[in-house]
Amino acid sequence: MGIDPGTRRTGYGFIGVADRVFRHVASGVLAPRQNAPLQDRLVFIYDGLVELIGRHGPACVAVEDIFYAHHAQSALTLGHARGVALLAAAKAGVEIHSYPPAQVKRALSGHGRAEKDQIARLVTMLLRLPEPPQEDQADALALCICHGARV
Amino acid sequence: MGIDPGTRRTGYGFIGVADRVFRHVASGVLAPRQNAPLQDRLVFIYDGLVELIGRHGPACVAVEDIFYAHHAQSALTLGHARGVALLAAAKAGVEIHSYPPAQVKRALSGHGRAEKDQIARLVTMLLRLPEPPQEDQADALALCICHGARV
Repeated sequence: MGIDPGTRRTGYGFIGVADRVFRHVASGVLAPRQNAPLQDRLVFIYDGLVELIGRHGPACVAVEDIFYAHHAQSALTLGHARGVALLAAAKAGVEIHSYPPAQVKRALSGHGRAEKDQIARLVTMLLRLPEPPQEDQADALALCICHGARV
Repeated sequence: MGIDPGTRRTGYGFIGVADRVFRHVASGVLAPRQNAPLQDRLVFIYDGLVELIGRHGPACVAVEDIFYAHHAQSALTLGHARGVALLAAAKAGVEIHSYPPAQVKRALSGHGRAEKDQIARLVTMLLRLPEPPQEDQADALALCICHGARV
């Protein structure tokens, strides 16, 4: 499982790996009501992730490790979403792995500064998806592939 | 209830208010094992807060509203703790109020730049505590008083 946490949109993805071939299982975006208070959005994201983890029973979860944010306020808000994502995985007893964005990009494209749409195209190709995923969904699937390529 | 969230130490306090007199109910610090992984510390804090909220059944929760952090990394880490604190309160259906640090200081001392030890002394006096509380515990009780003075 891969999670790209955010209080507005949290992307998630599940893949299977066998003989170095990736298989798309499920993916999507948890998007709470945009004008809902922060705490209600956190409940929506947490409950959604708990339900998804329960349904798909992942062996491990890869979450983006954010060392860098443009400013403290966005880091703080992002931290809220990442906190409830880690909580959902840890309470389910699922192993958690963290990858910095540059490592995810490098795992897919060979270099650490790939553009968003290039990552989306590579995800689409590697998982043989019928159409390109949404941005946060693509990032969650890229996390799955980054970890899946190492196991 | 007041919560001063942190991934290393989360302060909490419960007070009662009647006829503008404050009464100390309970307070302390949730301190997860310091070398535990972040996700395990978040589980410790979340479970601790859920248990405390269940035991004391607060009418409302006051949480520090952090607009400012020294750098993005500390804001991100702090956000994780604040996220699980909001989640614990919201899932229990408890009303949440946010106060910026300066407003809490002003509510107790009359100005927004009071020192930590002055706040601890005022909390000790207003709640008639036998001894000054620990730092994070004092901040949580100060949040209780800040909100309690308004209701």
